[in-house]
Amino acid sequence: MGDKSIKVTAPATVSNVGPGFDIMGFALDIAVEEMVVRIKSKPGIRIKKITGDKKGLPLNVKKNTATVALSHMLAKLEMNIGVELEIRKKMISGSGLGSSAASAVAAPFALNELLDRPFSKKDLMEFALLGEEVASGCIHADNVAPCLYGGFILIRGYNPTDIIQIEPPKKLHCTILHPQFEIKTSEARKLIKQNYSLKDIIAQSGNAAGLIAGLMKGDYGLIKRSLKDVIAEPARAQLIPGFYEIKEAAMNAGSIGCSISGSGPAIFAFSTSYEKGIEIGKAMKKVSSERVKKNIVYVSPINTVGPKIIG
Amino acid sequence: MGDKSIKVTAPATVSNVGPGFDIMGFALDIAVEEMVVRIKSKPGIRIKKITGDKKGLPLNVKKNTATVALSHMLAKLEMNIGVELEIRKKMISGSGLGSSAASAVAAPFALNELLDRPFSKKDLMEFALLGEEVASGCIHADNVAPCLYGGFILIRGYNPTDIIQIEPPKKLHCTILHPQFEIKTSEARKLIKQNYSLKDIIAQSGNAAGLIAGLMKGDYGLIKRSLKDVIAEPARAQLIPGFYEIKEAAMNAGSIGCSISGSGPAIFAFSTSYEKGIEIGKAMKKVSSERVKKNIVYVSPINTVGPKIIG
Repeated sequence: MGDKSIKVTAPATVSNVGPGFDIMGFALDIAVEEMVVRIKSKPGIRIKKITGDKKGLPLNVKKNTATVALSHMLAKLEMNIGVELEIRKKMISGSGLGSSAASAVAAPFALNELLDRPFSKKDLMEFALLGEEVASGCIHADNVAPCLYGGFILIRGYNPTDIIQIEPPKKLHCTILHPQFEIKTSEARKLIKQNYSLKDIIAQSGNAAGLIAGLMKGDYGLIKRSLKDVIAEPARAQLIPGFYEIKEAAMNAGSIGCSISGSGPAIFAFSTSYEKGIEIGKAMKKVSSERVKKNIVYVSPINTVGPKIIG
Repeated sequence: MGDKSIKVTAPATVSNVGPGFDIMGFALDIAVEEMVVRIKSKPGIRIKKITGDKKGLPLNVKKNTATVALSHMLAKLEMNIGVELEIRKKMISGSGLGSSAASAVAAPFALNELLDRPFSKKDLMEFALLGEEVASGCIHADNVAPCLYGGFILIRGYNPTDIIQIEPPKKLHCTILHPQFEIKTSEARKLIKQNYSLKDIIAQSGNAAGLIAGLMKGDYGLIKRSLKDVIAEPARAQLIPGFYEIKEAAMNAGSIGCSISGSGPAIFAFSTSYEKGIEIGKAMKKVSSERVKKNIVYVSPINTVGPKIIG
């Protein structure tokens, strides 16, 4: 085989989603990175270069989520081929927008396309989960699954990973405020309480069930009433300067639900139109700018396709 | 006004529903009781007689859920009329099938019909909740709401009570095994743990969301995978002789999910047809009969109408 190559993007994803701690995520029409995957005659997996990320992501193929995912794919494939990657990051790492999951999804997706799809999406999911594991230390599907499948995903449980696609209402839009500083997922994880009251567990399960019903019914009022979290938001708000003020600004500007994306610092806010999403973004940025120097705002519908081939 | 009267039935209801502790319930085509409500010229609320219940339900109008609900209704109505009730119970009390809720729903429903519906269902709900409060000591909608509205109900939260109607799949049937002994709700409540782990809260919210998605999608496999509970079932199974063996028998006979109804001793088991429901009931009864002398089995589709006028 010669030097066949493909260029893909994988979408940013919001995990947790209010009451959906560790069980929900959705994809955005925002590319986290562009990745070129090239089949080479010389066996082995190599990262040729990573650009756009000042911190320096691991070039070590045993530590980068993209190459770890690929190594599991090649092991299943039993083909002695070489694969070379070029990654251009479009966001700083530690954003809370599923950057490591996007790498873990993009690489197997791209190689599968180059090889005329020997694997199903379910297979790709397994490779991506094993890739993501090196970043988070355990199997977590709440970014990987929406990144690969697109749309809104419920992960009912693990062993085996039970992924359920939920169709969100067409008009649903999402504003992302991304204050430009890094939060390490492992640090944010340590803030999560290990014990909860009976009242907490009833509230969280009621709101999680309510959010799914609201999305499936297209009931925006129900989505708004359900967007409450007793696990991550109360524990992690302290990591984001002015979080509650930013949330208040989003709600006052007409958002139908706002919380921390993943482990932050990105904050998501739902709305029912692109125009409303822009207004909400302005209001959020204004408040955050008083505390954090640089803030980037995105407004996006829900991405329903997953990764895209761009060249 | 003369001696106008009406005869109604209110349905049995299953609350908790596996992962839906305190937040879910559904109605069955099984009447808990028949109630005759009669408008009398002499003011005041009276219970003329209660039959069919050997234990003796409260005739005291301040303690019976039916008459407490009615007293709140009459207070809102500002009419100086008399109301007389005759109640014929069709189940022993302490069944776990929403007997007190059925009384609290039937009485205001019946009087509202006699008066040509001055109140909406939402109003009736408020009266019924206040009636049910005297039986349980706090506001609980997980039997009252499905009893009044019919169908499958999610109670997302309280303050105010947020009731969401979920349309279950048409083929869904429910088998009820009712071993003939009483469990007091207040005693069963004391067994519920007050503290839960992070793993518990993630599992419960994932399964609660999964059950709602399964019902709305008509995905029986998902319903089955979601029917897991970390709160009530592990705590209360000890109250029902042979519970886990009965559940195993139901699952082996083809049930798509089985757990304790309310605080028991009734056990519910879902299936996809009436015939399958009958088979499941036979299997459950066989196991329970080795431990409890008398067992009654019901098989029913989901009741989608609430109370019925029968005379």
